[in-house]
Amino acid sequence: MQNFLAPEFQFIHQYIKKLAGKGALGLTDDAAILSVEPEYELVLTADAMVEHVHFFSSDAVDLIAQKLLRCNLSDLAGMGAEPVGYLLTVSLPKHCFNAMWFEQFTSGLQRDQELFHISLLGGDTTSNPHNMVFSLTAIGKTLKNKSLRRNNAQVGDGIWVTGTIGDAALGLLALKNEINDVDGFLTQRYHLPQPRLGLNLVDIASAGMDISDGLIQDLGHLTRESQVGAIIYADQIPLSKQAKILGNSYLETCLTGGDDYELLLTIPQDKEQQAITQSHKANIPLTKIGYCTDQQGSVICYDSNKITMNFKNTGWSHI
Amino acid sequence: MQNFLAPEFQFIHQYIKKLAGKGALGLTDDAAILSVEPEYELVLTADAMVEHVHFFSSDAVDLIAQKLLRCNLSDLAGMGAEPVGYLLTVSLPKHCFNAMWFEQFTSGLQRDQELFHISLLGGDTTSNPHNMVFSLTAIGKTLKNKSLRRNNAQVGDGIWVTGTIGDAALGLLALKNEINDVDGFLTQRYHLPQPRLGLNLVDIASAGMDISDGLIQDLGHLTRESQVGAIIYADQIPLSKQAKILGNSYLETCLTGGDDYELLLTIPQDKEQQAITQSHKANIPLTKIGYCTDQQGSVICYDSNKITMNFKNTGWSHI
Repeated sequence: MQNFLAPEFQFIHQYIKKLAGKGALGLTDDAAILSVEPEYELVLTADAMVEHVHFFSSDAVDLIAQKLLRCNLSDLAGMGAEPVGYLLTVSLPKHCFNAMWFEQFTSGLQRDQELFHISLLGGDTTSNPHNMVFSLTAIGKTLKNKSLRRNNAQVGDGIWVTGTIGDAALGLLALKNEINDVDGFLTQRYHLPQPRLGLNLVDIASAGMDISDGLIQDLGHLTRESQVGAIIYADQIPLSKQAKILGNSYLETCLTGGDDYELLLTIPQDKEQQAITQSHKANIPLTKIGYCTDQQGSVICYDSNKITMNFKNTGWSHI
Repeated sequence: MQNFLAPEFQFIHQYIKKLAGKGALGLTDDAAILSVEPEYELVLTADAMVEHVHFFSSDAVDLIAQKLLRCNLSDLAGMGAEPVGYLLTVSLPKHCFNAMWFEQFTSGLQRDQELFHISLLGGDTTSNPHNMVFSLTAIGKTLKNKSLRRNNAQVGDGIWVTGTIGDAALGLLALKNEINDVDGFLTQRYHLPQPRLGLNLVDIASAGMDISDGLIQDLGHLTRESQVGAIIYADQIPLSKQAKILGNSYLETCLTGGDDYELLLTIPQDKEQQAITQSHKANIPLTKIGYCTDQQGSVICYDSNKITMNFKNTGWSHI
């Protein structure tokens, strides 16, 4: 982190400074300081978002900032971690260097900082002659050795998801005018993911991750790392009212589209009741959609007639 | 962090995976895990580097990667921290998505990982239709409450710098063909900064930072945060043989140019001997260039005739 702004850009420092919390040292030093209580360990993740790849030029800047932060927070949620803070680098074309742009950008972050009880630890603002590029590193914590991994699902464990699946993928179709988003719900789900923080499944779930590349592909990742297989049932996968209305022809989009930012979890059968209790406590819906099999590498999704579904695409590629 | 690569880009994962260390969980999960010994606290910094702003398209990719890493390590050195690991996001145009590019990019990082005893903790690779944009978050540690801050320089403390000042700024002039870099030393100093890690000044230096925006400007930052002033002597500022040959007309460039990545330190007079001992131990040259005054906000640089120097530019703006 550096004090690198020419005098005419010092206003930026004021906007960014408002986001800085304890440990950021008022953004005056080369780096931030973070203390970790001895019973905790840190969980760290980083993602980038690029104009023309991950968002449209016309998207609201506060929503872009919030989505970037929330995608990273969702990764923390996927590890069962509690968020602590974040570092952010922004590379911007000339037209962004004005108070209105920074006001909007930082107001989105400010809202989410309050919502998720985190603050900015540091970062960098640079120019980019071409397009907006953001990168965010999120830092969370878990009790030592209690983070949720992908590699511990066991044969027979139930497969569960939070929330509803596919809304964001449908939201993207709506933004491309391919479907009609009557009440704005689907678009909202695309722009503003809801990281499923606060669902305390320590010593309950056997494995977990966040769903960002599509349910089917991410289930493939989880089962591969755990060396198990999976059978899931399409008619048990929770869909929103808005997704259901669109009908079966959009089911594949829901199951293979990206950007859900819901959690995918495996839970041993004897822990199901505890999981449901935690789900009620956190007010986060949790639905069982299948179970882990001993058919390593096999992810089977049955339709309502118990026929194996075949998918043209199994997931979203960010490249 | 996500498993987000389409099959045709899975080769990238192999290159990046080689960089992953303990805690990165083989890059298989949503995030990395980092334990911190109870007597330590973490030091965190992030910087971005943008093609056409911070480096030329023709620059060697391994050097770009190393410079990005080293700039961040220099921030850690400025806080007196020991590096632990880093997260990296890269956003790349299509022409970079080939094995040769990734081989070169990761080989630079690999070399520096070995040199500085660190490893990759996580990150993200995305496309960018326009240009290369990199962002790196570096994580270090210091004993609790022992990090070097900018705000504790006292009136009477000596002002010291490591290494030689101005080489990188001259290296940039050489790359622009404005001066001749006979032996390649200056260009090398521009491309490959040397983070001054390992100079253990805990309980010796009163304040410190790395010099990235030019000595004069950074001295302004440090004295402002410490509410002191400064007098320094141009003829005591250490210059390399190559910089000296260019003569006095390049002195301003040396004192106000950016990219030094040397350390600027204030050291109480009764600790000077200890500092020199540490400098010998670490094999890092340390030179006294002036002292802190009670003239808050005043940074005076005397030339060899004891006349105050006036600078056209006081430092480098990254915007």
